[in-house]
Amino acid sequence: MENHPTAHQRKHHLTTADRVGLYKTIFGRRDVRGQFKPDPVPDRVLSRILLAAHHAPSVGFMQPWDFVVVTDPAVKGAVHAGFLQAHAEAAEMFQGDRRATYRTLKLEGILEAPVNLCVTCDRDRTGPVVIGRTAEPDMDLYSSVCAVQNLWLAARAEGLGVGWVSIIRREVLQAALGLPERIVPIAYLCLGHVTHFHERPELETAGWLPRLPLDDLIHANRWGDKTNPACAPLKTTIRQDLASAEQGIFPGTAME
Amino acid sequence: MENHPTAHQRKHHLTTADRVGLYKTIFGRRDVRGQFKPDPVPDRVLSRILLAAHHAPSVGFMQPWDFVVVTDPAVKGAVHAGFLQAHAEAAEMFQGDRRATYRTLKLEGILEAPVNLCVTCDRDRTGPVVIGRTAEPDMDLYSSVCAVQNLWLAARAEGLGVGWVSIIRREVLQAALGLPERIVPIAYLCLGHVTHFHERPELETAGWLPRLPLDDLIHANRWGDKTNPACAPLKTTIRQDLASAEQGIFPGTAME
Repeated sequence: MENHPTAHQRKHHLTTADRVGLYKTIFGRRDVRGQFKPDPVPDRVLSRILLAAHHAPSVGFMQPWDFVVVTDPAVKGAVHAGFLQAHAEAAEMFQGDRRATYRTLKLEGILEAPVNLCVTCDRDRTGPVVIGRTAEPDMDLYSSVCAVQNLWLAARAEGLGVGWVSIIRREVLQAALGLPERIVPIAYLCLGHVTHFHERPELETAGWLPRLPLDDLIHANRWGDKTNPACAPLKTTIRQDLASAEQGIFPGTAME
Repeated sequence: MENHPTAHQRKHHLTTADRVGLYKTIFGRRDVRGQFKPDPVPDRVLSRILLAAHHAPSVGFMQPWDFVVVTDPAVKGAVHAGFLQAHAEAAEMFQGDRRATYRTLKLEGILEAPVNLCVTCDRDRTGPVVIGRTAEPDMDLYSSVCAVQNLWLAARAEGLGVGWVSIIRREVLQAALGLPERIVPIAYLCLGHVTHFHERPELETAGWLPRLPLDDLIHANRWGDKTNPACAPLKTTIRQDLASAEQGIFPGTAME
């Protein structure tokens, strides 16, 4: 039976065009803060995005996530107030020019985005013992993050922007959304149509930090072995791909 | 200028076909343990997969990840030994039938997969103060998880299977890979060509846990409000989409 694919498996045979679609989505995804439009997000689109999140990998098939869909201005306002407080506290942590630059950055679109979404993790979803979480207790949190990334990519493929608001204290978010103790808010996301997507990450354009050279982040077999001849051909390929990407020609996004 | 898309932006306009490719990848992704083939993974493919990971979102554009590419049998062996120990300890935590079932599950492909990959998080990558990590210290860990999910989807779109080995103690993994203290191993992944992808998650097929009804995981504005009329149309749409998905017809995977 394993050698005779079912109709389902044939349907899920991925083509070069499918691969191109994935890569274009990944390379075109941005953290959106300032370009939200008020146009409503149709339910059929929101449903697909949530279904994509729900098909993320989860440790022990635990599916620890829930989704709080926020459209109520009062709840948005409470979250926004929590952001403003944490943002003011954060500014004090930067020094000199960095502080001035930090204050000029637009870092969230809570009030402008028509939909806000909180992705959570229920640490008790399937009881205390979970396959795959026995040696690494954070695996359930990581599963919910995988759901966030699926959701983010699905939104991008639907033409919608997503921004992750992390400048807010966890307990403030828990109070604003009425989350029980066992429920960890993993990501508070702003979602909506956008005027445009930026060519590059905004912090890269602003000169805050550069894109790191990926080839320098590759280690052969053990940490620190960056010059192993076994990895040299891979690193050469990566450098070529990076050079293409810098020119806006992303590997894997053309029909070959 | 914002109203006149550049060549780069036009190139990254996503089509319906691109969206279909993303959704097929998301719905067809599996945690692979038992179907790895020994065929080598070409460098040009591995480079694309790593580039996809490198284009994950990261807090403050911190890019906290590194990638340890493991092909050395000695390193694989040390990791496998760590798995066996943690797996034996885990089995003791399950009771009765669950323990017997747990022992029959194939949970990793460390030795069979031609490539193992450890995705890490460097907590000190850009100094102590990071935009977006000031109120939520785990954001750097979550960024590396986003890289894992991008990598996983890219591999699936390339026809490669990935399995996440989480049944191993963090300190054992750190020792096997020689990771410094500040480097957290986020995911130890097995990667390679596969004989086939399962139709459904193996733990679902094994009857360990069912797929949860997504509509029941949606809350309106605040935790626990699952009957708010404002969310009723969305939940109806989700139930229709879930019913289709159960029959192998995934929403968003057809050209409309």
